[in-house]
Amino acid sequence: MSKQTLAPLFKLEENKREPKVINGFYQKDIISVNQFTKDDLAYIFARADEMAEMAQRWGTCDLLKGYTLACVFYEPSTRTSSSFIAAMERLGGKVIPITEGIQYSSVSKGESLIDNMLTLEQYCDVIVLRHPEIGSSASAAKYAHVPIINAGDGAGEHPTQALLDLYTIQSELGKVDGLKISMIGDLRYGRTVHSLTKLLAQYDVSLRFVSPDTLRLPLDLMNDLIDRGINVRETSRVSDVIENADVLYVTRIQKERFTDLLQYEEVKDFFEITPELMTRAKEKMIVMHPLPRVGEIHYKIDRDPRAAYFRQVQNGMFIRMALLAAVLGQA
Amino acid sequence: MSKQTLAPLFKLEENKREPKVINGFYQKDIISVNQFTKDDLAYIFARADEMAEMAQRWGTCDLLKGYTLACVFYEPSTRTSSSFIAAMERLGGKVIPITEGIQYSSVSKGESLIDNMLTLEQYCDVIVLRHPEIGSSASAAKYAHVPIINAGDGAGEHPTQALLDLYTIQSELGKVDGLKISMIGDLRYGRTVHSLTKLLAQYDVSLRFVSPDTLRLPLDLMNDLIDRGINVRETSRVSDVIENADVLYVTRIQKERFTDLLQYEEVKDFFEITPELMTRAKEKMIVMHPLPRVGEIHYKIDRDPRAAYFRQVQNGMFIRMALLAAVLGQA
Amino acid sequence: MSKQTLAPLFKLEENKREPKVINGFYQKDIISVNQFTKDDLAYIFARADEMAEMAQRWGTCDLLKGYTLACVFYEPSTRTSSSFIAAMERLGGKVIPITEGIQYSSVSKGESLIDNMLTLEQYCDVIVLRHPEIGSSASAAKYAHVPIINAGDGAGEHPTQALLDLYTIQSELGKVDGLKISMIGDLRYGRTVHSLTKLLAQYDVSLRFVSPDTLRLPLDLMNDLIDRGINVRETSRVSDVIENADVLYVTRIQKERFTDLLQYEEVKDFFEITPELMTRAKEKMIVMHPLPRVGEIHYKIDRDPRAAYFRQVQNGMFIRMALLAAVLGQA
Repeated sequence: MSKQTLAPLFKLEENKREPKVINGFYQKDIISVNQFTKDDLAYIFARADEMAEMAQRWGTCDLLKGYTLACVFYEPSTRTSSSFIAAMERLGGKVIPITEGIQYSSVSKGESLIDNMLTLEQYCDVIVLRHPEIGSSASAAKYAHVPIINAGDGAGEHPTQALLDLYTIQSELGKVDGLKISMIGDLRYGRTVHSLTKLLAQYDVSLRFVSPDTLRLPLDLMNDLIDRGINVRETSRVSDVIENADVLYVTRIQKERFTDLLQYEEVKDFFEITPELMTRAKEKMIVMHPLPRVGEIHYKIDRDPRAAYFRQVQNGMFIRMALLAAVLGQA
Repeated sequence: MSKQTLAPLFKLEENKREPKVINGFYQKDIISVNQFTKDDLAYIFARADEMAEMAQRWGTCDLLKGYTLACVFYEPSTRTSSSFIAAMERLGGKVIPITEGIQYSSVSKGESLIDNMLTLEQYCDVIVLRHPEIGSSASAAKYAHVPIINAGDGAGEHPTQALLDLYTIQSELGKVDGLKISMIGDLRYGRTVHSLTKLLAQYDVSLRFVSPDTLRLPLDLMNDLIDRGINVRETSRVSDVIENADVLYVTRIQKERFTDLLQYEEVKDFFEITPELMTRAKEKMIVMHPLPRVGEIHYKIDRDPRAAYFRQVQNGMFIRMALLAAVLGQA
Repeated sequence: MSKQTLAPLFKLEENKREPKVINGFYQKDIISVNQFTKDDLAYIFARADEMAEMAQRWGTCDLLKGYTLACVFYEPSTRTSSSFIAAMERLGGKVIPITEGIQYSSVSKGESLIDNMLTLEQYCDVIVLRHPEIGSSASAAKYAHVPIINAGDGAGEHPTQALLDLYTIQSELGKVDGLKISMIGDLRYGRTVHSLTKLLAQYDVSLRFVSPDTLRLPLDLMNDLIDRGINVRETSRVSDVIENADVLYVTRIQKERFTDLLQYEEVKDFFEITPELMTRAKEKMIVMHPLPRVGEIHYKIDRDPRAAYFRQVQNGMFIRMALLAAVLGQA
């Protein structure tokens, strides 16, 4: 039976799928915070605002109808994968979730990550990739023909987290310039702190770094901030920054970082955000946390309107909606 | 680039998503069978009937277009999670399936279940939760801002199973009042038997309990039935009830419940439903089972029109469709 | 509250879901390559062509709106499950992905595979099944009331792989008749080679089999080809076939097949496709591989237009779209 004898299934002359907005993001990979200019950030944030309004009003829409996302997680991260899946689905796109059965193999040893990308891109229009090795997303982006969005490459980057953090500051406080922002916790190893700090360095902000002595911000990052003329200070007690802070960005301090557990017990209380401490904070300020928390923020603070960490989670979905739509030429 | 300079992505004045049916279920949690009145049950069953007709005729619809479900399973249960996923998808809603990568942690020890709920609710409009600890769904419902549907909390409740069981009786036999219903198997530990029994106690039914001596219905449940004036009898042989039963509700007897395996071997045949036994049953009656079975119902009975256990599975999907639509204000 | 007092949720007289194309595939199981005639193949390939055009132009469509697929994988296979999921989603159908929480149990020992099928079919219109045991799909098809599509039954069959392989040959080279096709690698245990060979035996082709001595094509398969009058030759070096081949179908040689590793090291290079080797190949020919590869095809060949193995992956999605639509009466 030849094709000619068949009644055609589709009227293909109708409604070709086409990019509608071609800008700096169209078909681009999202790998690192370093690739974003202030204009880029303003653009994505404006689109995220629209996504928030749409989600509030309609819940879902058809903006990415016709497009498919492969959401590839080589290590589990429920919060991040759920956020991307929700983002794509709310835009009317399809999702292929891939979180198991992937045989992990070092990018350096074999090439199976690349072969997997070249395989999966046959099914989809964009790939979100989480992989435990630094540089994995950049490698994937080098070979893949569809946009790669880095959803965390080990100790490397997690750019959408930094974008959502910055977007939360802007959407909660109406601006970024002029703010006093305190980063609290493990500033040495904390990937989210490093990435957010890099983005903030593009703005006129004052940064306060609150950490145990052994977990201070890395020297090169600190020097870079000073070179850029950012107003920076370091301290080891939240109580030193609580009164002036517009933003408290709280992160976990992992016990495992301390060789001496007594030392951990000694310092950990200096970094807990308690209701008592919050009485000294400004009326208009926010508490953020990349989550999950393990005691750094007291549960009673959840009901404080200044607790922004769950709204921060939702902002992540809006930012990812904006990015997905942008790289696919629909925003 | 400011928002004002962008061509807007959406015409948001159109089609606001709104609750269309506001009743006792709207925005409510579904935690326990105890929360359902007879009127509630009649309402959900009537809606489930409509769901069944719709599924039969259209397959899927757009009733929950714009709504998103997070289906969160801390322990695997293919049958239940598939049923909820199918239910939401058939109603045109989106699903975020979350079945892995969740770090299990005791509700009592930490608060991570609650934090997970407060996180995931940022992405969705309703959460289905399966968790191995009694009371987990009630805790989640206390803190979450979206409706929680309990899909099993350990030895606690699994209310949608009880609803689908009761719905199956009504839809197969046209009524519940006046029926003779026999519960068979492990009546001591069987969660489904306890929940269904509680629901049946609202009706005018005769209940027969068939179990080994060591696996009889708990005393408090039995006393409660007697107090309510329900006609109850206990026996240890299915042959005692087969002739009069309108419903045989069969459950597994787990070998592990017996300290003496000889005792298990002695009694187990008294509880097997065989084709021979079925020749003595009424022409119009049904055999039910919450599944999976492991030998309690002979495979030859599958072809007997009185075997209702696979239709019972499908009824579960219709009941869940009705509940999802009801808590979201669309039924 | 009775059904009569409720405002109905649906206008069910509208748009009944119905089969639109009733042919030899409607409601049929897809279990083995042996069930396909040459006409069947031509039909499915013509439909796959339409799917490719649709995907290229629209991305997704509504052909299978109203239909639901249960994608049941008892063992992980990311490439195959993703392909089916993408296929169903691109056709506007719903997918219930089931890849975990299934308790594996021998088909012979228990009947749980069958009970699982009879359960899951209550939620869906078609089941894709991957199961590690030979004959599992045939057993499932015997009892299930919805079409079963075999996505691999252990050492048995994987018919959609063979169909996509043959479709790739036809769509890349415009025909199958008259071609010289070389199968390379482990021809003894390679399931994909066996299935593709059976399909090719329906055409007027010349087959070349290139393998180590211990991994030659099974005797019964070879004899069957000879009986059918197919022109066949065997060799142990790719260099013997490279100049005349229209198709090189390359497969892995697993080290584990060799009791003597020295022997493996001795022969393996005879089967690697290198850029150097490709300089001797025809200008119009293709290199195929069922993937994943582990060194049989040099990475530099990826950029050679004759490298068809990633397009082959995409063809898998088109073939599965065609099959899903056909068994559901929509193509």
